[in-house]
Formats: sequence, structure tokens, C-alpha cells
Amino acid sequence: MSEPRLDFWFDFASTYSYLAIMRIRPLAAACNVAVRLRPFLLGPIFKAQGWDSSPFKIYDAKGRYMWRDLERLCADLSLPFHRSDPFPQNGLMAARLALVGFDAGWGDAFCESVFRAEFGEGRRIDDADTLTDILKSLGIDATQAFQAALADANKARLRAQTEEAQRLGLFGAPSFVTPDGELFWGNDRLEDALAWAQRTSRSS
Amino acid sequence: MSEPRLDFWFDFASTYSYLAIMRIRPLAAACNVAVRLRPFLLGPIFKAQGWDSSPFKIYDAKGRYMWRDLERLCADLSLPFHRSDPFPQNGLMAARLALVGFDAGWGDAFCESVFRAEFGEGRRIDDADTLTDILKSLGIDATQAFQAALADANKARLRAQTEEAQRLGLFGAPSFVTPDGELFWGNDRLEDALAWAQRTSRSS
Repeated sequence: MSEPRLDFWFDFASTYSYLAIMRIRPLAAACNVAVRLRPFLLGPIFKAQGWDSSPFKIYDAKGRYMWRDLERLCADLSLPFHRSDPFPQNGLMAARLALVGFDAGWGDAFCESVFRAEFGEGRRIDDADTLTDILKSLGIDATQAFQAALADANKARLRAQTEEAQRLGLFGAPSFVTPDGELFWGNDRLEDALAWAQRTSRSS
Repeated sequence: MSEPRLDFWFDFASTYSYLAIMRIRPLAAACNVAVRLRPFLLGPIFKAQGWDSSPFKIYDAKGRYMWRDLERLCADLSLPFHRSDPFPQNGLMAARLALVGFDAGWGDAFCESVFRAEFGEGRRIDDADTLTDILKSLGIDATQAFQAALADANKARLRAQTEEAQRLGLFGAPSFVTPDGELFWGNDRLEDALAWAQRTSRSS
């Protein structure tokens, strides 16, 4: 029997990824599934679908509904909620920093903090000050982290991760992928994805 | 205290509406919510968003995922599943017949049977034979029902219902709307919509 594992793919601009990242840690711990955070960029994937922005921005009724839905779900979960402005925000630098953080051991906490700042506190995550504040609050040397994030190899790593997302058939975020390649899309499928990860690890 | 009520909006071509219609009756009964079925046409609504077909048809990765997701969900619910071909199917005549049926008392059973034929048995619901078989199985005079469905006033009624859906901000199906105008989109929100309908009826 192998250890149950689940990849959690997200874009830092994704509203429903905020819900998923705030929920996944206790749920995964309760069923012993090891979660790997995989930030990627939805931009190139949306572009391949002919969209120049988030579908919530392009389609008015869908966008209006999403904000209301998010507000309701945050209330149910007792999560702070601020409608981010502008939307969608550019999560490029946050994603590059996250990759640096995964190697150094502070990646998961950094990702949670970025989402909390963006959708819980209404801060701009494309602002270096916000990201610097978050890094400092985690006891990280921000100057060093930015330098590492901007290294060519790290930029290439994020591009490669986004290409992998596209190869896996991802078309939105959050998405969850089990080791046997089963894809689950959306915060609503988090429980199903964890259950699948558990079942397949038992049978392998 | 008013009776808890919920409007269930759907298009007969909608895959996730199959799940919702198969689930809604026992769930609504368990919490005493009166459900009104409101068929409408997604075509004009998709057109207003710039789509000439279902987004599952236009966006490949999204479409591939939807069929896999539906297959998994049907398995969980022990519901028969057949991938409908062609997809999406034209549900115009089924919707017109449903409106006739609501007045005559066989509308709800007819709607369930149409979805079961389409996604449970893989039959074509744009085929008059399928619809005739369903009507007969419910003990309805099919010739009379078709005549009533094709009356100008009935056609106008379906157009008006679709316009109402658009005014309510609907952008997909299934959608659920409570008497106080709260919108819930998707089979995944059925339980939330029922709970909302209950809560608001208690406080009114």
C-alpha cells in the first residue's frame, strides 16, 4: 500500500481556490492524504480557450453569481471575505515565490497567507509590499526570496508547471489530481478527490 | 410562516440537471420544500454570452471532464448513465410538452422520464417517438399532448419562461431560485438551495 497523495492545482487569482486552500489541510489530515500544492497560471490556459481574462470577468451574470456564491460559502465556513479589486489579480510573483518556498519549507504557509490577504483582507497580491509583509510575517528574508523567485531557472519552473497543468487537461482552478491521473475540478470536489486518493492508494 | 418553496430551472439538454431532477424529490420532501419545475431554453442565454452551443461542446477539456465527472457522480448515486449522442440534444419539444403536463398534472413525472431516457438510456429526446413512448407510459394521449404543445400560446409561454430565466440572471442549468430571489447554480448547490428556502420561509 502506497501513501495516499493528492496534487492541488491552483492559480492565486482563483476565488474558489481560496475556499479550497482554507479547507484542505484539516480534511486531508483527517484521512491521511499527503497534499502537494501546485500553483500554476490560468492565463495561458484561458488564452488557449479564447479568453483574454477570467470567465467571471467576461461573462457578467456568471461573475455576479460567483461573488454572491463565494460570500455565502465564506459565511458558512466562517471565513473572512473581501471582494478583491481589481479582479482577477496578477498572481505571477506570488506563484514564483511559492515555488521558492516549497524548497525552503515555507511554501504551504506562504500560499495560505497570500489567499488570506487577497480574499480575506482585500489586499493586492500583485503588490510587492503585500508579498514582503507576508514573507516577513513568516520570518523569511524577503530580499533573498524575491531574488530566488526572479532567477531564470525558477521562472522556467513555473512555466513548466503551467505546461504540465495543460497536459493534464486542467481548464480551471482549483483542480485536484490523484496519482492515477483522476481529475477533480472545483472546491466542491475536494472531498471526492480526497476519497479517491485514499481508495486508490489502498488498492495499489 | 409561509410554505417553503423553490423553483428548479433546467434545460432538457443539461447533463447536471439529470442529477438534480433525480435527487430533488426525496430531498425536498425530507425538508418540506415545495418544488416547482421550470424548464427553459439555454440556447438564447448561451447566445447572449456569445456561444453557439454548450460550453461543454465548445471547450474540449471542459467537455471531457464533464462526462467523466457525470459518470463518477452517477456511479455514486447508483443512477444509470449513458453518454448522450448527439450532445447537446434539442429539448424544445420536450419543454413544450412539459408545460402542457404541468397544467394536466403529469408534468413532473414527464420531466423525470425525459431525463432518464436521455442520460440513463441514451435515447434521443428530439425524436418524437421517444417522447410519444414516454407519454404513453404515463397513460397520456400523445396526439392530444403534441397538439397542445404546439399551440401558439404554449410556444409563447416557453419563450416567456426563458425570458424570465434571463431576467433572473440565470446563465446555466440546473439553477434554483428561492422566493426571496436567491440564486443557486448547479446540482452541487441543491442542498444549499433547499436549506435557504427553509430558512427564509421560517423568518417570513
